[in-house]
Amino acid sequence: MAQLAARAVDGIGEVNAGDDLAELILAAGGRPAAGEIVVIAHKAISKAEGRVRRLDSIQATPLARGLVAGSQRDARHVQAILDETAELVRAKNGVLICRTKHGFVCANAGVDASNAPGEDTVVLLPVDPDASARLVRARLRELTGAGPAVLVTDSFGRAWRHGQCDVAIGAAGLDPLTDWRGLPDRAGRELTATWIALADQIAAAADLTRSKDSGQPVVVVSGLDRYVTEADGPGAAALIRPEAEDMFR
Amino acid sequence: MAQLAARAVDGIGEVNAGDDLAELILAAGGRPAAGEIVVIAHKAISKAEGRVRRLDSIQATPLARGLVAGSQRDARHVQAILDETAELVRAKNGVLICRTKHGFVCANAGVDASNAPGEDTVVLLPVDPDASARLVRARLRELTGAGPAVLVTDSFGRAWRHGQCDVAIGAAGLDPLTDWRGLPDRAGRELTATWIALADQIAAAADLTRSKDSGQPVVVVSGLDRYVTEADGPGAAALIRPEAEDMFR
Repeated sequence: MAQLAARAVDGIGEVNAGDDLAELILAAGGRPAAGEIVVIAHKAISKAEGRVRRLDSIQATPLARGLVAGSQRDARHVQAILDETAELVRAKNGVLICRTKHGFVCANAGVDASNAPGEDTVVLLPVDPDASARLVRARLRELTGAGPAVLVTDSFGRAWRHGQCDVAIGAAGLDPLTDWRGLPDRAGRELTATWIALADQIAAAADLTRSKDSGQPVVVVSGLDRYVTEADGPGAAALIRPEAEDMFR
Repeated sequence: MAQLAARAVDGIGEVNAGDDLAELILAAGGRPAAGEIVVIAHKAISKAEGRVRRLDSIQATPLARGLVAGSQRDARHVQAILDETAELVRAKNGVLICRTKHGFVCANAGVDASNAPGEDTVVLLPVDPDASARLVRARLRELTGAGPAVLVTDSFGRAWRHGQCDVAIGAAGLDPLTDWRGLPDRAGRELTATWIALADQIAAAADLTRSKDSGQPVVVVSGLDRYVTEADGPGAAALIRPEAEDMFR
C-alpha cells in the first residue's frame, strides 16, 4: 500500500523579521530528508521577510473609505489590501476578491490580521513566494546537505464551495502540476483533461496536521519522494490560470 | 508532532454494478478502524450503483449537437452531461462548466469516460453521494463493528488555478467544514473568516497516495480521529455555496 505521512513541526515559536526559517526548522527538530516536502504557512515567511504593515502607518484613500462604508472594517486595513491588488475582481457585501500582483485570485489579496505579530498590524503575502521557497530550500541544503522540496502556502476560499483549502503560492523542488493529459487510463484509453494540482493537494494535506491556533507554521510531508526534483522547477506561478483562459472574471 | 497518514488499498479491482463496496474493501485487507476515514473515488461508487450509460443508448438533442459543432467531442457524451446538468454555468471553447442536480459546480457535470467500464460508456456521479457515503459507513459498521467516516470524492478544476484537486461530494461521519469564525487566534484575536473545508482537504490528501492508472479507488486516512463523529452529520451538501451567495456565475 502506498503511504503518505505528514507531521507538524512543534516549537518553532513566533517568527520575527530577519529570522532564518531553515535554522528555526532545524532547531525545532524538524530536519527534513532529501525526498520530503517542507510545507510552510506563508505567514512565517512573510514575518521573516518583514512583510508586515502597521495600520497607523497607512493613510486610507477615498476608494478604501468607500469600500468600508457601512461595515465594521478598518479603512486602513482595506487600503493595505488595495496596495497589494492588481485588479479588484469582485467587491460585494464587504467581500473583496482580488487578483494580487503575483496573479493569485483570492480574498483580500492575502492580507490578513489573524496571527499577525501585533494588535494593529496586518501580514502581507511574500513579494515573490517562489523565490522564498527556493531560498529556504537552498538554505536547508546548505545546512544539512539535503535539499527537500519546499512549498509556501495560504488558505484560499473557492468560488462555488464553502470553506477554505490551503494551496501553494510558492514552490521549489517539485513540479506543482502533474500532467496526465495524453497518457492512458487503466483501460488504455487516453486521459484528455487530467492534470493534477499536486502542490495544492500537498498544501491541503499538510494543513490537516495542525489547527489555526497551534502555532505550527511548518509541516513535513513524506512518501512523495517520486515528485521531488533536483531542479527547483517552475514554481507555484505555474498554477496561475492566465487571464485569457479565465471564464470567471 | 501531530501525524497524518494515508494508505491506498490495493487489490480492489474493477467494481461492477451491484457490488458491495464495504465487502470489497474488507476483502482487500483495507479494514478501517473507527477513527479512520475511508475515502472512495466516486467512480467506484457510481459503478457499484449502476450509474453508467452506454453511448449507443443516448440520442443527442440539437443543443448537444450544437455544443460539439467544430470539435472532436461526441454529441452523445455531451448529451449525457446535459442530462445531469441543472444549469450550464459556462460553455466556451468546448469546456462545459455545469451546476449538477446536486448543486456542485464542475466541468462536464462530473460525467467522464476515463476509467469507464467499457469503450463506449460514461460514468455519472452518484444520484446522492451523501446517501452513498452513509450506506458504505453503515455497512462497514455492520461487518466490522467499527464505523469510520466515509468520503466520496471527485477531481474538480478551479476557476483561477490550473489543475484539479480532489474534493468531497459525499460525506458521512465527519462535519465537512471546521468553523473557526469567532474563535481566537494564537494571540487571542478573533478569527473572522476562517472556515476550513476539512472534507475537501482530506480528499486532496487521499489522492496523493495513488495515480490515475493505479486502480486504487479507496484510501484510508488516519490521524484525524478528532474529527470523526458518531452521527453521520450534514454531508458534503454543506460544502455547496448557495446560489444567492455566489459571486461567480
